[in-house]
This record gives sequence, C-alpha cells and structure tokens, in this order.
Amino acid sequence: MNPAAAFGHVLRYFRISSRLSQERLAQESGLDRSYISLLERGIKQPSLTTIIQIAQTLDLSPRELMAKVEEKLRENSKD
Amino acid sequence: MNPAAAFGHVLRYFRISSRLSQERLAQESGLDRSYISLLERGIKQPSLTTIIQIAQTLDLSPRELMAKVEEKLRENSKD
Repeated sequence: MNPAAAFGHVLRYFRISSRLSQERLAQESGLDRSYISLLERGIKQPSLTTIIQIAQTLDLSPRELMAKVEEKLRENSKD
Repeated sequence: MNPAAAFGHVLRYFRISSRLSQERLAQESGLDRSYISLLERGIKQPSLTTIIQIAQTLDLSPRELMAKVEEKLRENSKD
C-alpha cells in the first residue's frame, strides 16, 4: 500500500465516523467533492495544505491524521 | 505564515541540524536538489509522499515532522 492509498483509507474511515458525506466534507474543508473522492480512492495524494485542511474538518490535528496514515502503512506492510 | 513556509523553515532547521547539504538530503531522499531548495524557501509545498521521504531521511517519523510544522504555524500566528 502506498501513502496515497493509506491516506485514502484513513480519510474515508474518519469521514464516515464523523457522519459527513463527501459533499459536506468538501464544503467544510473548501475542497472539491470530486477531489475528496479521488483522495479516498488513493488516486490522488494530498498536499501539506490539504492534509491540514482535512484534519481541521475531521477535528484531528495534522499530526494525529499523519499518525493514522503511518499506522495504516505499517499494518499493510506486514501483508 | 502559510503551511509551505512553515514546512520550509522546519526542513531547513532539521537538515542543518543533521549536517546534511541540500544535495545530500536530495540524494538520500530520492528528490531533486532544486526541489529541496524550493521547499526550503516555501515556494513549493510537499505532497504526502515527499513528507514521508524527507522525514525518513531526517530520522523523524512523519508525525514528528508534522508536529514541528504545526508548532511553527502556531508560533507565527501569534505575530
């Protein structure tokens, strides 16, 4: 699993946990809904600014969001 | 200070603390030296993959690197 795919999984997990639709997350973070969809599918990877914007919308600090991405990468490197 | 500028400051600080030249950091992280220079000056912002690559080269976890960027942003929002 590459970083984009790990980020996509983490984003989807926290978005659904926060009961936000892709549309709502997009609005609240100032990003396009189609971009959120590309991120969740691991097709696009986020920039630093996007990581910070999305973390704020999900009520996480950027470091917490990054920690979750690292965990996901670690888990999947065992496969 | 925007996220790119905060990242640039943090990168420069840890690169110099690690006694690495821009060239050496570039080689070890698999990035171009000119790109490292653009990052340090806050002209470009890093992608998730670049954050992970640079953190590894600087012997930090990506979450630690992100924490430093957050601190820098917080410090400079007080001005």
